Amino acid sequence: MTETSPAPDTETYVVGVDFGTLSGRAVVVRVRDGEEIATAVHPYPHAVVEESLPGTGEELPPDWALQHPEDWREVLRTAVPAALAAAGVDPAAVIGIGTDFTACTVLPTLADGTPLAQTPQWAGRPHAWPKLWKHHSAQAQADRINALAHARGEKWISRYGGRISAEWQYAKALQVLEEDPAVYAACERWIEAADWIVWQLTGAESRNTCTAGYKGIHQDGHYPDEDFLAALNPGFADFARTRLEHPLLALGSRAGSLTAEAAAWTGLPEGIAVAAGNVDAHVAAPAARAVENGQLLAIMGTSTCHVLNGAALADVPGICGVVDGGIVEGAYGYEAGQSAVGDIFAWWLRQGVPADYRDEALSTGEDLHQLLTRKIAGQPVGGHGLVALDWMNGNRSTLVDHHLSGVIVGLTLATRPEEVYRALLEATAYGTRTIVDAFEDAGVPITEFVVTGGLKKNALLMQIYADVLRRPVSLAESEQGPALGSAIHAAVAAGAHQGVRAASAAMGRVRRGAYLPDPARADAYDALFAEYRLLHDHFGTGPDKQLHRLRTIRNAALSAAATDRKSEVRPA
Amino acid sequence: MTETSPAPDTETYVVGVDFGTLSGRAVVVRVRDGEEIATAVHPYPHAVVEESLPGTGEELPPDWALQHPEDWREVLRTAVPAALAAAGVDPAAVIGIGTDFTACTVLPTLADGTPLAQTPQWAGRPHAWPKLWKHHSAQAQADRINALAHARGEKWISRYGGRISAEWQYAKALQVLEEDPAVYAACERWIEAADWIVWQLTGAESRNTCTAGYKGIHQDGHYPDEDFLAALNPGFADFARTRLEHPLLALGSRAGSLTAEAAAWTGLPEGIAVAAGNVDAHVAAPAARAVENGQLLAIMGTSTCHVLNGAALADVPGICGVVDGGIVEGAYGYEAGQSAVGDIFAWWLRQGVPADYRDEALSTGEDLHQLLTRKIAGQPVGGHGLVALDWMNGNRSTLVDHHLSGVIVGLTLATRPEEVYRALLEATAYGTRTIVDAFEDAGVPITEFVVTGGLKKNALLMQIYADVLRRPVSLAESEQGPALGSAIHAAVAAGAHQGVRAASAAMGRVRRGAYLPDPARADAYDALFAEYRLLHDHFGTGPDKQLHRLRTIRNAALSAAATDRKSEVRPA
Repeated sequence: MTETSPAPDTETYVVGVDFGTLSGRAVVVRVRDGEEIATAVHPYPHAVVEESLPGTGEELPPDWALQHPEDWREVLRTAVPAALAAAGVDPAAVIGIGTDFTACTVLPTLADGTPLAQTPQWAGRPHAWPKLWKHHSAQAQADRINALAHARGEKWISRYGGRISAEWQYAKALQVLEEDPAVYAACERWIEAADWIVWQLTGAESRNTCTAGYKGIHQDGHYPDEDFLAALNPGFADFARTRLEHPLLALGSRAGSLTAEAAAWTGLPEGIAVAAGNVDAHVAAPAARAVENGQLLAIMGTSTCHVLNGAALADVPGICGVVDGGIVEGAYGYEAGQSAVGDIFAWWLRQGVPADYRDEALSTGEDLHQLLTRKIAGQPVGGHGLVALDWMNGNRSTLVDHHLSGVIVGLTLATRPEEVYRALLEATAYGTRTIVDAFEDAGVPITEFVVTGGLKKNALLMQIYADVLRRPVSLAESEQGPALGSAIHAAVAAGAHQGVRAASAAMGRVRRGAYLPDPARADAYDALFAEYRLLHDHFGTGPDKQLHRLRTIRNAALSAAATDRKSEVRPA
Repeated sequence: MTETSPAPDTETYVVGVDFGTLSGRAVVVRVRDGEEIATAVHPYPHAVVEESLPGTGEELPPDWALQHPEDWREVLRTAVPAALAAAGVDPAAVIGIGTDFTACTVLPTLADGTPLAQTPQWAGRPHAWPKLWKHHSAQAQADRINALAHARGEKWISRYGGRISAEWQYAKALQVLEEDPAVYAACERWIEAADWIVWQLTGAESRNTCTAGYKGIHQDGHYPDEDFLAALNPGFADFARTRLEHPLLALGSRAGSLTAEAAAWTGLPEGIAVAAGNVDAHVAAPAARAVENGQLLAIMGTSTCHVLNGAALADVPGICGVVDGGIVEGAYGYEAGQSAVGDIFAWWLRQGVPADYRDEALSTGEDLHQLLTRKIAGQPVGGHGLVALDWMNGNRSTLVDHHLSGVIVGLTLATRPEEVYRALLEATAYGTRTIVDAFEDAGVPITEFVVTGGLKKNALLMQIYADVLRRPVSLAESEQGPALGSAIHAAVAAGAHQGVRAASAAMGRVRRGAYLPDPARADAYDALFAEYRLLHDHFGTGPDKQLHRLRTIRNAALSAAATDRKSEVRPA
């Protein structure tokens, strides 16, 4: 392996690669100032595997979501060279590569990192395949983990708002053990895709602080006890020791050097720095200049993820997790989230808009979001008489309850589609304020609210957030926060900047106070937020679990009907 | 005036005329069996006058709704002859005419019945015009009437579910007195359009039991005391005595004989029987064979009106009214209502359906109601996980609260438009069950549930009502229940049948038990009705008046914005 180094005084570059749910995106970034030179996207050929297993075509049960590891490698082979070519940058000037991934996306591998899904022996077994973050069929295992953790008074449970998600490493691994013990036995390493992709680049296993902490219950220097795991299932006792344990790398660390093989895939110089793995949400913080304590970054898209550094460790009820060094070394990284945000707006548009609205949009060339926004933007706050609960996909923070559902209150025969649309925008702002309040009430101060992600372009939404939060809203300037964040980590790993904070200052870009709260509107929203909180408490924390009952009724009705249908088609 | 009488043993006919909100409809009916020979409709040229006064163009304040009396006379001159011509019936074979009207639609006239609106002196004054039932700007007067009635312990207030509506005679008349005293002074008679149209036919004033009771607070043989009226406003003390008082006619009575002038308008024989006036909802009962005690007739259209006879007088909380002989002589006639039913379904369709649904409807030739019905009819009860409150236009019975609004609970990102549609159908069924329960809880038994009106054609809706009510649903067979009902009253007035009950038996038509409850679905709906009741109590009768506050916030926001707009366009 040869180390390459560009001549002094020439511009140097880094590559960031963001592995999303449906595609991977590579960006070439100038080290000096973070300028994004070029980008390229590679959609995964297998996308999300939800119906049937690649190869065998075996039908998958409900709530499964897998991915194909070769799709990820393909991003390295296609998107990285394409971005390099588009940038017109001499590959020799590239000094590092960084990556980020959805999480918890996790897979079983052999000791050398070969995915079980890519071995002839196990390729036909669904549990051998990588489980995507939104694989949701391990809820029973998650429920047992949570019950046991509370029963045993495990100290770590409070670091996760009191509840481990069915999406995370332990629930998914326990599901493998209990549903396909042979696959579990063949699994020598159980590894986040975030770390597995780094393994592909460096040729050696590494693990990062962020996924180990948020998704792997690594707290205070260790994983959960063997006693705890044995109580879940005797065969699970050595899970962490045998399949997870590995030294953890701080974010921005150099995980290793680019192998000759990976250099051939990517067109990058062999031997350049490869940064430790990272998570798409967390890695975006330095791209948005949101790495100082108190700067909350909201990554707003179909859902919202909130990341925030704090100087001290606090128990904040209902957050997703807090991890020492989980976002930047030397701070407690807090994560919270809203299960659906943009998805709610899209859902409402999917319900439909009147035919004359469609005709109008066609004639003006607006999309439906723009049309509804134009029709409603001028209405005074509260003018629609509506309040909604933004729980159409459950509530991640602060209620941590995926069996909640949405509520709209105040409808009249005069209510127009754009009024409901606006009420839904506002509902997500109230949900954010609830999270912001939870942090501050728990003693984690928030000094700035920064937004990145696709929704930052929605000016009405951003103004509503400013007014509802009574805070300025800053906007990250990059359109590809995670990929830029990965590039920033690559620059740190390559030693071009002294730590992530310094790299963020040099390479991140933010427009501070892009939206300012209007005092009169903020006052009006205070009154509506009080109404939201009343609804929130009635339906979310009150003694009457109506939303849970409605879901139970729904599931029972649908499952009885499915049974009836099956028995109808059974041969006589 | 000559009396005409057809030769014995020839078929005889009657004409019923139904004066609706937007048009008048005449039907020619065979006396022997109620066969509807022909019908004709005349839309009112002025429809509902809400924006500006005919003639002067003077702008009307919000919540006003007037009509033009000449539009009503025009129905006599056009629809009646047209129906006769279409029927091909010898006018000499017609032995009577009956009418029904929206109510409380009320107008000020001179002593001879001339509408003030049609006098040169008063035509330019808005308060001189007939106020349509949905003229809603007398709420302040209604509130005072109610407060005073309760303060003084007026016995009659309990006959109206504890609350007089702003739509009724007293609130509207008091509004005239207080907002345009000169018009009030010029008003010699204050008369329901139901009675005024009979005056046009007979040439003499008459008043009927039904409107006097339900809309005119005529109870136990008299109107409210002068003391009471004086306490509202000293100038109002003699209102009932001077402007309302007149002997009341039982329904089905002969109010008089057709004048030569009215015979010339209608093409009917001079001197035939003219029945006492009636209300569109109540007059439909004999057309649907729903005149025996315990038979509840639901007139289901944009809203629903429920009429029901009972042997005894009972205080039923939240009903619209109970009047001795209010539907049929010799029984207590109860009325209740739901402020919006079909209007709610139309509102949801107006919110819009997805573009691919529209395309599908175009290709199948279905309307959107049919399309949504087909998509959802097979879903098991509760399969959508939703419960809604049917208060998008307030709640007429049993909460009598027009400041309530609609609520939808249980929404998820997977919720489809047809699921909300079905939840809204169900919500109106739960609203009906609440009313049915209120009658039975108060000791007014309901032995049969009969439906008439446009919505009876909605098979899914009817089945839902049967399942939710756990009762068979009978369907009136006529498509024009009120007009047929008026014709039945005409036959009684002409002496062709011995009373309304006998005429109903001969001329009304109903399909008994057209929809039967399914026990399993009824059980499932019991559970959902319990959820509806929890929502109903939380939002409708609980201590937290959230829906009222949201409306107050809305109205204040909109009115402040309107003030701002006005001040912006004010010349400097």
